[in-house]
Order: sequence, then structure tokens, then C-alpha cells
Amino acid sequence: MPFTDLSIATSATMLPIQEIADKAGIPRKALELYGNFKAKIDVSSLPPATKNGKVVLVTAISPTPAGEGKSTVTVGLADAFNQLKESVIVALREPSLGPVMGMKGGATGGGFAQVLPMEDINLHFTGDIHAITTANNALSAFIDNHLHQGNELNLDPRRIAWKRVLDMNDRALRQITIGLGGPLQGVPRQDGFDITVASEIMAVLCLATSLEDLKEKLAQMVIAYTYDKEPVTVRQLGVEGALTMLLKDAFKPNLVQTIEGTPAIIHGGPFANIAHGCNSLMATNTARRLADIVVTEAGFGADLGAEKFMHIKSRKGNFHPDAVVIVATVRALKMHGGVAKNELTHPNADAVRRGMTNLAKHVDTVRQFGIEPVIALNRFMTDQEDEMHAIMEWAQENGVKIALTNVWEQGGKGGLELAKLVQQELMKPTEFKLLYDETDSVEEKLRVIVQQVYGGAGVQLTDNAKRKLNELKKYGWDALPICMAKTQYSLSDQPSLLGRPEGFTITIRDIIPKLGAGFLVCLTGDIMTMPGLPKQPAALKMDIDAAGNAVGLF
Amino acid sequence: MPFTDLSIATSATMLPIQEIADKAGIPRKALELYGNFKAKIDVSSLPPATKNGKVVLVTAISPTPAGEGKSTVTVGLADAFNQLKESVIVALREPSLGPVMGMKGGATGGGFAQVLPMEDINLHFTGDIHAITTANNALSAFIDNHLHQGNELNLDPRRIAWKRVLDMNDRALRQITIGLGGPLQGVPRQDGFDITVASEIMAVLCLATSLEDLKEKLAQMVIAYTYDKEPVTVRQLGVEGALTMLLKDAFKPNLVQTIEGTPAIIHGGPFANIAHGCNSLMATNTARRLADIVVTEAGFGADLGAEKFMHIKSRKGNFHPDAVVIVATVRALKMHGGVAKNELTHPNADAVRRGMTNLAKHVDTVRQFGIEPVIALNRFMTDQEDEMHAIMEWAQENGVKIALTNVWEQGGKGGLELAKLVQQELMKPTEFKLLYDETDSVEEKLRVIVQQVYGGAGVQLTDNAKRKLNELKKYGWDALPICMAKTQYSLSDQPSLLGRPEGFTITIRDIIPKLGAGFLVCLTGDIMTMPGLPKQPAALKMDIDAAGNAVGLF
Repeated sequence: MPFTDLSIATSATMLPIQEIADKAGIPRKALELYGNFKAKIDVSSLPPATKNGKVVLVTAISPTPAGEGKSTVTVGLADAFNQLKESVIVALREPSLGPVMGMKGGATGGGFAQVLPMEDINLHFTGDIHAITTANNALSAFIDNHLHQGNELNLDPRRIAWKRVLDMNDRALRQITIGLGGPLQGVPRQDGFDITVASEIMAVLCLATSLEDLKEKLAQMVIAYTYDKEPVTVRQLGVEGALTMLLKDAFKPNLVQTIEGTPAIIHGGPFANIAHGCNSLMATNTARRLADIVVTEAGFGADLGAEKFMHIKSRKGNFHPDAVVIVATVRALKMHGGVAKNELTHPNADAVRRGMTNLAKHVDTVRQFGIEPVIALNRFMTDQEDEMHAIMEWAQENGVKIALTNVWEQGGKGGLELAKLVQQELMKPTEFKLLYDETDSVEEKLRVIVQQVYGGAGVQLTDNAKRKLNELKKYGWDALPICMAKTQYSLSDQPSLLGRPEGFTITIRDIIPKLGAGFLVCLTGDIMTMPGLPKQPAALKMDIDAAGNAVGLF
Repeated sequence: MPFTDLSIATSATMLPIQEIADKAGIPRKALELYGNFKAKIDVSSLPPATKNGKVVLVTAISPTPAGEGKSTVTVGLADAFNQLKESVIVALREPSLGPVMGMKGGATGGGFAQVLPMEDINLHFTGDIHAITTANNALSAFIDNHLHQGNELNLDPRRIAWKRVLDMNDRALRQITIGLGGPLQGVPRQDGFDITVASEIMAVLCLATSLEDLKEKLAQMVIAYTYDKEPVTVRQLGVEGALTMLLKDAFKPNLVQTIEGTPAIIHGGPFANIAHGCNSLMATNTARRLADIVVTEAGFGADLGAEKFMHIKSRKGNFHPDAVVIVATVRALKMHGGVAKNELTHPNADAVRRGMTNLAKHVDTVRQFGIEPVIALNRFMTDQEDEMHAIMEWAQENGVKIALTNVWEQGGKGGLELAKLVQQELMKPTEFKLLYDETDSVEEKLRVIVQQVYGGAGVQLTDNAKRKLNELKKYGWDALPICMAKTQYSLSDQPSLLGRPEGFTITIRDIIPKLGAGFLVCLTGDIMTMPGLPKQPAALKMDIDAAGNAVGLF
């Protein structure tokens, strides 16, 4: 049998989750067991914080369809710290089931740098995403019931701002009409389903700091506009209490372990394009009070994930990363250097050198935040010596710290060099700074992101976006951070512009206020919020074996 | 604070679920904990069966909107057996979240005859229903993806026989159109959502005897017809393995406890109209191997619930009930005697006497199956002595065993008299017999149910039903038990015909084959498979308190 992530995961020996909790300093009374290897943490039962953990953010160069192994490096780096006897917790996002059934694996790392039990984590886990689906769709049912039962709030059925969700890749639900069949079956209107991780409730759950805060944020969500174009919130419907009740268990962070027994907190997983793409603030805060070092990641490349981690999550959480790791791979740099996807296995050190411009920009970006990044060059079997050499050479010439990682094959051992470099950075004081203030104008905030983070020339707003911006200002919603929705493949808004494009303009086509999550989503193009399945879904290979275990999951 | 089900439940002291497992003879290695008070039972890790428990089925007269307290009596009877030092387990259905948010409570009993933790059981519990939602909608996504990706199986988009589901009361999703927006967004077609408990997957999960059997039943489900009107099954799509994988944990029965510490297995909850309305065969079988007495219930009155329990669940499970309890109430009998719902609190012994005809028919029905029933007269505060006396007198005159129950107020103590009568019945040999064979013609099976169980004159099929019947015969699907979909309020198919109507004809309007579940649903009218919310949903009163506990759940 060839090594697969699933075969490695299922042959690993897990410790009882109580032992992992002991290691993390979580008392038994704060543990709610889900089987022998998963538990929810009742944060209210934790002792007063004894630590104030430093945060290591793992981000990446602009990703390619080939995959860079960012989650794998995140897990492997935590395991390396564990081997170095550091007090460490890794904090990750929860995988969405839709993509698991479709084409990709989960977000549980890979090889010998995985979190376990990967099978459970990638399927229903502790039910958090199902609870979010339920709360989201309960809200939809309340809205359509309100329309049906007299519409006291004068909601305009053409201006309902709340969509239903499923944790599924289901393109046929993108655009639908509902309420058909006559006056007993509701009010007809256009609607659509997003994938659950795109729900504003997911973003809210990930940014709330307490159950009360969760309830307040849910209450603030805008669900519709009236015929007079006035916004209507959840509070006006009066269901924020019910929604909070549905989410009370999902709000508790989940404790699991890595293959090497490092404590892992996996909680929340908002989309990285229309939301901020990081695991929950509850998870990060809980990890910080329990460990000296918290290793965590953000979605996509540093232009999207790290930028939002700083400007949205860190800002709300009143903390900042103390070190940043940028994951790069030979094959991705080769793609940024102009090589087609199907030729990435051919040696091409020149292309690697050309592609370095992309990495260079992300290094510059992280430095602007006052943090000196460390590059993790994540090895793949097909990498050639001269290709890797080109990267090491560039790093040396440009004074950037870099370490080879081989955590897929070696686990924590393959991340020791990286961990030691990060340790050095953690000892230095950071001079962290955000690049914009919330109170800056929306135009100024956009300018800062585009020019400083993307390296572009400027921003333009379509007429639609200008109209939306005027509305935002009218309602007093403009003093919120920006959540950019942009292609992850390019620093620009054109997916085909790889490397480090220059002189480009970013076009903002729409601005969607997310008052619960507390940010303004700025759309630069069509963003897919409900994926589709491929012609041969991964599900076709899935099964159970005679013992009832999952087969073909990866 | 007035006594409510929630206040009684939350003030009760629960035993750790391990202690309940010890009591039930479930070893630790077969327990998968979900917190401290819920666990899944890994049946494959149970020791060989030492018991062959007798089954007590709790059913009822034709129900009224007033509610008869059948689940409450079921729980209270089990607690009474527990007080009598019998080895007993109560086996119940899982509540659906949709109705909880809408207007009614869950199916966890009431007062001092409840299963705990009621709050969890009524919300997400151990995620079984969410897993069914997910599997059901994954199948929908696979079907629509198949249509979109070339439609190799030649499915007719107008003849898709598989609907999506949500565990929500959401009338606006009853009739929808999907796949709008052009060729990149799927194939447009009519569709609709049912509530999850109406999914055939719920019925399949409740009737499967092993994971392999579950997979085989899933494979047999008909999901569509081709342009040539040939049926297409899940097996042809090749996703039965993936669906089974999604259901592998949901298939494990859940262990909880009653307020009095009696072990309770809660698992599965198919609709009682378009499905068979009983908890899972896995739950009943597991309880039977662990306890001497298993108390369980079936949905609606004996004409629907008990009939299907015998002809569908018992037949598939190769067992039969050893005793049957029929729950009756003064107020329901009064309604059957012609009193309007808003006048039920006025004393009216004559109306009670008139209403006895309904109870008499259900007694006759149970006797036809070879079992002597015991009546549980479930007391309510407003019941008058002369009203109760009228019922007791009738029972004595007709040689029917009857006991007063007061379990809401007194718990098991209020069910002792009933338990002692049932004990007597359990000591006698039963001469159980089914009223029809699977191999009888569909017409004959329908005749038996209508004449013997409903007391009607005969059956007629509409042209549509005749056409469907011919199709069934053509495909060789007719040798399956019948699952009647009929109003629960009357023995006839007219909800307003209370008491014991005679001479009526039942009209079958449609016949829907459920080849996975293994029965033929015969529709006698419009059956609601997606409920709606009331004008003031129960959700408006739901909230969390400062400690994060649910408030206003009941």
C-alpha cells in the first residue's frame, strides 16, 4: 500500500485526548469529550491565564493550483517546537465537507505533519459547521416566514440580503427561485445557496470574543432592506437569542492532536475570499493563554491571508503576530516564473529565479507590518538541487532568513531548522504596525491595501461600487476594516498575472457590508461562493471497510 | 418560577453516562462519549447478547391537536419498570429541530418523565440528523452534477425522484426552481426541499441491521427515471460508499438517561406519515440484547404507528411486540365525542362515553395482531372524576385492562399500576400474527389495512395510483410492505371524521416506491413533507442565559 495521508493517519497511535489536555494545561472539568480523541474546551472553566503566548503566523506566496503545503508546514512547525520542548499549540481552521466530497483533501495537513483523527475532522468533526448551517438557514426560514405572515417590517423581497447555505459543492443551488406554488407556499423571490463557510455567521463566530459578543454581532447582521431601502437587522426580527442558542456549542474551540502528540485547537473556517480566512479568535486566544507559542495560518497568500489576519483578526483581538513564516515551493515559484502547470516537474532553475519576484513582494509586505519574515522552502520529491540553490542564493543576497522544510516525510524533525530560525525572531521585539486605521476613509483604506500590499498603482470603483459606498457612508458603516475579495493567484485582480505585476489598477465592483462580522467586503470580480463538483467527484472512491472505517477519503 | 419541562430537566441531577452504561451492561470500550451525559454505542464492541428482551410498544388512540403525552407515558412506564427492579431500557426517536424552532417541544417526554439532557437532545444532539441532511444533499449534488457533466445515465431532469432536505420548517423551499443562471450553473429544473426526517435516508437508517445492510439499502434507492422511464438507483451513480461513510457515526445508537436514571437509547426519527415513524431497528435490537424489557413507541395512533411497527419494523427485524399499551386521555376522548378543542376543559362525561368508540377500535386492532392491549389513561389536571369513571367502567364492561398514569407529575411512581399490568401480559405467551404477507398483491394488502385496521369498507385507487401500481408491477417492486400516508386524526382519510367512522372508503391517490427503505408509500391525500413556521415561532423566546445555557426552549 502506498503512503497516503489517510493511511499514515489511521496507522498513527493517538493519545487519549485527556492526556493532550493535561499537556496543554486544560483541566478535566473544562473538557467536553467527543469520543476518545476529540474534545470541546469550555473556556469558562479554564483557570486564569498563566501564559501570554506568542503568535507565529504561517502564510505563503501567491498560491498555485499545485498546492504549497501551508497547513502541512504549520503542523510540522508546531511539532518541531514540540520536539524542541517549547510549550506550543497549533491553531487551525476546520475543513469544509463540500470540497472534501469534491476534489481536494481537508485542511488537516499531510503526510507525517497532520492533525488527528483526520477522518473525523474532515467529516462531521464536532458538528460546528452543521450548527452554523442550521443557524444560517433558521434565519432564512424566519425571514421568509416574516414575508409570508404579513411582512410587518416592510421587507422588500427583492432586497433580501441573506442567503441560505449548505456545506456542499452544489452549483445547481447558486441561483434559484423559492416560494413557488401559490399563497400557501410563501412569497416567491429569487434566492441562492452559498457554501456554509461563506456564511456571515461563520465569520461572526470566528471574530466573537464571548457568547454575549457573539449574540450582539449576530443581532447586528443586515438581513434585508425595506421598500424604502432602509436596512433591517437580525435584532429587528428578534431571533439573535435563538441563533446564539443554536451556536452555543459550536462556539467552543475543539481540542485534537498532531501525529506527534502536539495539542491542536481546530475551530472555525471562514472563506478566505469573501471573509477573512482565519480560524477563530476564541481558538487563538485560548491557545495563547495555554501555551508560550501558538502556530496558526491564514488562507491564500500573504496579500490576502496575512493582510486580513493583521487588519481584521489581530485588530479585533487586540494582539499581533510575533513572527511570520512565508511558505514557498520550487514548483510554485516555477509557475510564477512562467512555467505551465503540466511542466512543473521538469527542472528549470531559471524559471525559479524569475518567479522569485512573487516571494520578494510578500517578504516586503510582511516587513511593512514591522515583522521580519522567515521563508519556509517546503520540499517536494521533484525538486532539483540547482532549483533550491537558486532560492537559497536569492535569500542570502537579500538578507532574508530561509529554512528547508520536509515535514510531510519527516514530521517535526523536518521543521527543526525552520523552528530554530523562528525562535530567534520570537526573541526580538517586534515593531508591529497596522497599515491603516479603521477610521480612514474607505478610499484611503483601499489605496493602502492596493499600493502597499499588492504593489499596484491604484484603485478604481465602478459606478455600482460608488453607489454602494455612498450608501455605506449614509448609514455610517464606513469606519470598518476592508475585507478584500480578490483572486488568490495574482497580486493583481487578474488571475493570469503571476510573479510580481506592476502598474496595475484594482477595480472594485461591489461593496458588501458585513456588520455582524464587522468588515466591508470589497469585490474585485465574480467571487464563487458556492463551488461545483468535478466530473469525477472524490466521493466516487469513498467507502467504508469491513470494520466501518472510512476508505478513500484521501 | 412555574414548572416547565426545561426547568424540571435542568434542575435534575444526571449520572455520568458511564454509570448508565454500567447499569445497561455496556462496557466502556463500546462507549463513544459526547460530553458527560451522551454517548454513542459501538455495537460491534458489545459482548455477545445475554438477554432477549421483550418489547413493550406504546401506541395511542387517534391523536388530537391537544396532545396525549405518548412519549411521556413511554418514559414514565420505563421508569416504573426501573422502580420495580426490572432490567429495562427505553428506546425513543430523535426529535427534529424544525418543529422545535416552530411551535412544539421535542420528543423527550415531559414533566418528571423525560429523557436528559433534554436541551442537547432537542438541539443538535450527537449530530445524527445533520449527518442525514448531509448525506441526502450530497446525493442531490451528485445527481445535479451528473446532469451538468454530460448526463451519461440519460436522466430525465423532469423525473428526478430525489429531493433535498433541511432540518427546518421552511415553507418557502417546498417548491423551487434550481440550476438557473445559464450553462455554467447547472441544469434548470423544478425541485423542492423536505424536512430531513422525511428523507428516505432516515427510513433506511432506521431499518438497516448493519453498516453493510445500510450501504446495500442506500444503493437500492431510486433517484430518478431516464428519458425512457427506466428507474435509476444510487448504485448506478456509484456513491453508496460515500453516503455510507457520511452516515457511519449516525448509524450508532445514542445512550442517554431518564430523569430517574433509566438507560435510554434514542436513535432515528422517521416521519410517521410518509415513513414508518419508529426509532431505529439498531436501537431496538441493541436494547433487546441488553435488557429484559424494552419500552418503545410508534408515531400517531395505533392505526398508523402500531400497524407500521408490526408490518414494517417488526417484520424487517424478525421480532414482535410482547405487549402493547394504548395511551388515551379524557380530553382526547372528549374530542372524539364531538367536543370542540376550545371547550375541552369543560366537564362532559357523556362526550367521553361517545368518544370511547375510537379507543374501542384501537383495542380491537391490537387484538387482531394476537396481543391483548393495556390502556394507559394518562391524567391531566382538568380531568373530572366522572369522566375518568366513564372510561374505567367501559374498560371493565369490555374486559380491557386499564391503568391510570400520572407520570408527568410523579415520574415512574405515576406509572407503577400500568407497569404491573404490563408485567402480567409479558408473562403470557403471545400469539402474534401479521395481518398480511409481503407477497400478497398490493390491492390485497391495502384491503387488509383498510378493513381490519381502519374499520373501513374498502379502497379505491385514482387513475394516477393505478398507473403507478402498474409501473410497480412492471419493475417487480410490488412484493413490499405498505407504508400508509394518511391523516392521523381520523381512522378514515378525512381528518374531521372523529370517533369510529364506518362504511368509509379510502382513496389512494399515489404510490411511491421506497426501495431503499423497502416499502411502498401509499398516499391518501396531500401529505406535508416540509412544515412551515407559525406567525410567532417558538424561536422568538429562545436565548442563552449568562452561564451559556439554553433558555425558553420549552
